[in-house]
Amino acid sequence: MSDDDRRARGEDIIKQLFGGLPSPSPTTKPLMDVTTEHLFGDIWSRPGLALRDRSMITVAALTVMGREPQLKVHMKGALNLGVSREEITEMMIHLAHYGGWPTGVTGLTVAQSVFDELDAES
Amino acid sequence: MSDDDRRARGEDIIKQLFGGLPSPSPTTKPLMDVTTEHLFGDIWSRPGLALRDRSMITVAALTVMGREPQLKVHMKGALNLGVSREEITEMMIHLAHYGGWPTGVTGLTVAQSVFDELDAES
Amino acid sequence: MSDDDRRARGEDIIKQLFGGLPSPSPTTKPLMDVTTEHLFGDIWSRPGLALRDRSMITVAALTVMGREPQLKVHMKGALNLGVSREEITEMMIHLAHYGGWPTGVTGLTVAQSVFDELDAES
Amino acid sequence: MSDDDRRARGEDIIKQLFGGLPSPSPTTKPLMDVTTEHLFGDIWSRPGLALRDRSMITVAALTVMGREPQLKVHMKGALNLGVSREEITEMMIHLAHYGGWPTGVTGLTVAQSVFDELDAES
Amino acid sequence: MSDDDRRARGEDIIKQLFGGLPSPSPTTKPLMDVTTEHLFGDIWSRPGLALRDRSMITVAALTVMGREPQLKVHMKGALNLGVSREEITEMMIHLAHYGGWPTGVTGLTVAQSVFDELDAES
Amino acid sequence: MSDDDRRARGEDIIKQLFGGLPSPSPTTKPLMDVTTEHLFGDIWSRPGLALRDRSMITVAALTVMGREPQLKVHMKGALNLGVSREEITEMMIHLAHYGGWPTGVTGLTVAQSVFDELDAES
Repeated sequence: MSDDDRRARGEDIIKQLFGGLPSPSPTTKPLMDVTTEHLFGDIWSRPGLALRDRSMITVAALTVMGREPQLKVHMKGALNLGVSREEITEMMIHLAHYGGWPTGVTGLTVAQSVFDELDAES
Repeated sequence: MSDDDRRARGEDIIKQLFGGLPSPSPTTKPLMDVTTEHLFGDIWSRPGLALRDRSMITVAALTVMGREPQLKVHMKGALNLGVSREEITEMMIHLAHYGGWPTGVTGLTVAQSVFDELDAES
Repeated sequence: MSDDDRRARGEDIIKQLFGGLPSPSPTTKPLMDVTTEHLFGDIWSRPGLALRDRSMITVAALTVMGREPQLKVHMKGALNLGVSREEITEMMIHLAHYGGWPTGVTGLTVAQSVFDELDAES
Repeated sequence: MSDDDRRARGEDIIKQLFGGLPSPSPTTKPLMDVTTEHLFGDIWSRPGLALRDRSMITVAALTVMGREPQLKVHMKGALNLGVSREEITEMMIHLAHYGGWPTGVTGLTVAQSVFDELDAES
Repeated sequence: MSDDDRRARGEDIIKQLFGGLPSPSPTTKPLMDVTTEHLFGDIWSRPGLALRDRSMITVAALTVMGREPQLKVHMKGALNLGVSREEITEMMIHLAHYGGWPTGVTGLTVAQSVFDELDAES
Repeated sequence: MSDDDRRARGEDIIKQLFGGLPSPSPTTKPLMDVTTEHLFGDIWSRPGLALRDRSMITVAALTVMGREPQLKVHMKGALNLGVSREEITEMMIHLAHYGGWPTGVTGLTVAQSVFDELDAES
């Protein structure tokens, strides 16, 4: 598969999840290219696991790893794929028990800010 | 809800996921009781998130946290709920990119040992 | 034990540690309920480990996990139970060696902000 | 303070905690020297935090970090300082909620192995 | 760039670092392919950072993340690129202070096992 | 070696890396003293590993541990020792694969802020 095909496939997934991605700076551009071509073009587009499942396990991983800016982005992605607000909230309560209480508490703070942002937009 | 009801509800989920749990030692018994009554009885049994989703996000969390003995147990649980071997394998490839390469490599080693064990039993 | 009893017991511990807790939003309320009934009502109130010891190991865990908002809350809790400022400071120097230098440096930054806040209040 | 004084002070704490330490190999000797002179001689011997408190927060940190070989050594240290088996067990149940369930489950497995070893010796 | 070119470039780096890689099982093969084509073919082969530097930062990352099986493999890789045993040992002493003491102690245990294995082979 | 000699040696390394360090508060002073005397005076000044290598593995460790304030300080230190901006950027792309994608994305955000700050100063 050519790099152009990988990129096109990646951009398609990014569109479904996030609508698009912010423009990179010169410093962030090289990793952004790898993200589009490889992370979304090679990996997220693999068959064998549904897009909704990929989205949910990504949210779960980011929650227990405490990576809040990325968690915010992927919570929005999950909502765009049809995961409900209640499901997001339940995920945080559940994960509080596997990653530890602060995992869930901080995850819910992020969820609240995502919900508030979406409510303000609409 | 009484503690007996919480316990009964927890035992029902444990049965669906794992068939059962090993007998505790005197040292592990108190946490095992909390596990049955609270973790499975109060949390896993909450409505609002499907059991299969709870199982998949638990596997995802344990994978990126590098908790191998518990990952093994929950991979078996996911298979018991109908998650396929290919889905488990794809989860590990996907998570290698969020938790780091060793996350995926070790996760697949655990998956291989689970598959081998199940093949040997049947 | 009924859920009401668990809640009453949890609220008693929360009062000793923090005076009280902030009002939850609709999103955070379900986990807040689990926190009061289970985390404080079932766990913190167990006999066999002194409240001061529970507080100190919670501060230690939050420090090495890098969970700063929760660390701030539990440092105040420890001070309310009679742990001294010097003991908090020494804990951070000690833990710098077990969780790594940034653990201690960030822990002391949190401690400084807690001490400053308390000084401003009095 | 001279390096010899730091070493003497470190060896005194090591004796109270562990009886002694295993002989280092040529590869491990340089860090072992830093451990005796600095970690135990400079840090553990600082005033302002009781030895028992230092031991308990070390056990807590190692538990949530999932560092099992070192956890085993420091659980024995805590027992040597007079922390009871019940207190160790309660610490693991408590920390399961801050570091996540696998933290507590693995911590209790380590505790069980420490208790069994001590019972076999006596 | 075609997938074959990416693979050839990846295999070249793998040869310099490790001599080769073990044969994958059916379960591990898909991630092994991504490893050869992307991780080594796309990333390790990028200009702008020397191979020796890539190797050392990989060892550093694996050390503080506590990923021992992968650390063992990459310590051998570093030695193959000309990093000395003393440099590896010093890295572990240094990192004990950034990732926490257990990081360094376990890292040196892994280093010792690598050195012993190489001595037994020669 | 006397404590004064350790301090002088530590201050020399700190000057090469950072120019100097901010003045401590009463709360942060004790750990700052340990940092100068031990971390820089005893450890960074050890022979057997080049200063540039120590700097790069410190940046790598802080990146995968997600310790952003300390990462910012040590990225500046690396640039002061002659590591190029391109090398820093490549390190983040590389480490995205070992510590997980958020590791690299956040690392590049920190790098961008460091580069912007330096550009604004000159």
